[in-house]
Amino acid sequence: MMVSTAVNPEINKSARVTTTKIVLMVEYDGTRYHGFQWQAGLPTIQKELETALKKLTGDSIRVIASSRTDAGVHAKGQVVSFRTKSTLPPSKFTSGLNYYLPADIAVRAAHRADDFFRVRGGALSREYNYYILNSPTRSPLQSRFAHLLSELLDIDAMNQASQDLIGQHDFISFASGIGGSLKNTVRQVYQAGVKRDGELIIFHIEANSFLPHQVRNIVGCLIRIGLGRMSQDEFHSIIESGKPGLAGPTAPSHGLCLMRVNYPHSFEGE
Amino acid sequence: MMVSTAVNPEINKSARVTTTKIVLMVEYDGTRYHGFQWQAGLPTIQKELETALKKLTGDSIRVIASSRTDAGVHAKGQVVSFRTKSTLPPSKFTSGLNYYLPADIAVRAAHRADDFFRVRGGALSREYNYYILNSPTRSPLQSRFAHLLSELLDIDAMNQASQDLIGQHDFISFASGIGGSLKNTVRQVYQAGVKRDGELIIFHIEANSFLPHQVRNIVGCLIRIGLGRMSQDEFHSIIESGKPGLAGPTAPSHGLCLMRVNYPHSFEGE
Repeated sequence: MMVSTAVNPEINKSARVTTTKIVLMVEYDGTRYHGFQWQAGLPTIQKELETALKKLTGDSIRVIASSRTDAGVHAKGQVVSFRTKSTLPPSKFTSGLNYYLPADIAVRAAHRADDFFRVRGGALSREYNYYILNSPTRSPLQSRFAHLLSELLDIDAMNQASQDLIGQHDFISFASGIGGSLKNTVRQVYQAGVKRDGELIIFHIEANSFLPHQVRNIVGCLIRIGLGRMSQDEFHSIIESGKPGLAGPTAPSHGLCLMRVNYPHSFEGE
Repeated sequence: MMVSTAVNPEINKSARVTTTKIVLMVEYDGTRYHGFQWQAGLPTIQKELETALKKLTGDSIRVIASSRTDAGVHAKGQVVSFRTKSTLPPSKFTSGLNYYLPADIAVRAAHRADDFFRVRGGALSREYNYYILNSPTRSPLQSRFAHLLSELLDIDAMNQASQDLIGQHDFISFASGIGGSLKNTVRQVYQAGVKRDGELIIFHIEANSFLPHQVRNIVGCLIRIGLGRMSQDEFHSIIESGKPGLAGPTAPSHGLCLMRVNYPHSFEGE
């Protein structure tokens, strides 16, 4: 086990262990996992990352994610940060962690971050996609990342309704599983839309942050709209209601993917 | 076990069992399988289809595929035909077989075909895609269906070289594992090209039919061209050489997908 004893003479002349903050762009197939966050005895993304970091650096390191994805939810662009005494350059965190991580989790890039960088509080927005396979039959090449729905959906109606999400709203009616623990349920939606890509229907949404189950409860409503079982007016009323539990049903987790997290400045280069 | 004793009075007045020809559009994730064709004691697509047909109809039915995909190769649009005494309408073959088939194989559509329809000999052309993930790191969301290559590929050079494939050529230099069993190694390539789609590089080729390993040996050459290790002239010489075994190396099977098989008339509707 190597412990860095490097000292930054510019800041402090007394001997102390310096740490650096590393930011990882992480992609995963969430199928096998009980979500991002550590849970005793269960496979989670956090546990796998921390196990790989331990193997790579020899240290027990706690990672923080921009978004706590639920069980079964995938990520193309999860952002994770941690502090380490290791002096490895960021590129070695990419290759080293990918060596130790299981095949369904990968570090796509690693960067050194400023000390004041906050991976959760510092994020300007999160972007999610929800994939619906709108087909009379299942598709083995797409089933892992898309929710199969055989009844024909009215994409225009879904897209039109989704525009009502844009702006600042109290989204408490779309939260579930929170048990009154959240103080502030107002969120700002920057973008929302529904489009077709072949057999897939893709719902895209960007907001400053999201309440638990918010995207999947929105999708549950949009599916009802697409099937003609809910009107845009009813959807609008749910958004404005401020009443917990009105939205849904919660769409299945495997259709959801965290696409990207945006920060005030990008992480191009190292 | 039900045996149909229906007789077509228009054709033959003597009592006999009539059969109908059914054509299936089949999609599969080939990861778990030793290719399409039946092999004793090994999981194959053919075995799964015939097992499901036995469960659905009660009869032992032999299926024929348009293309014998190799171990690990995927299909979005494999075409399979068989004869059956069953009087089930085609739509019931879709839903019934999907009920019995494993999750990584699905019937996307079923149609009744004329008696003279030949799924192999009657096909005008086959279209394949080969997917290369050109990235310094692996991608859990794409790794199942794309071959990872971290060194940067010159897509323009690959695309330009691929144009030399178009037309009629003796492709024996691209065949492998045939042991001199093929009498005719001349094939007609109708389309070929290499393009980028995000991190993916997609090689698409359409030909009347393909020799064993032909597409993967072409891709092996194109990768060498993309890395600057083979010139377009050398590639051209291999095409014109008529010498077995010159092309390659054989690219990994999991990047290959049978996209579509074309017939003189389409199978729209039932």
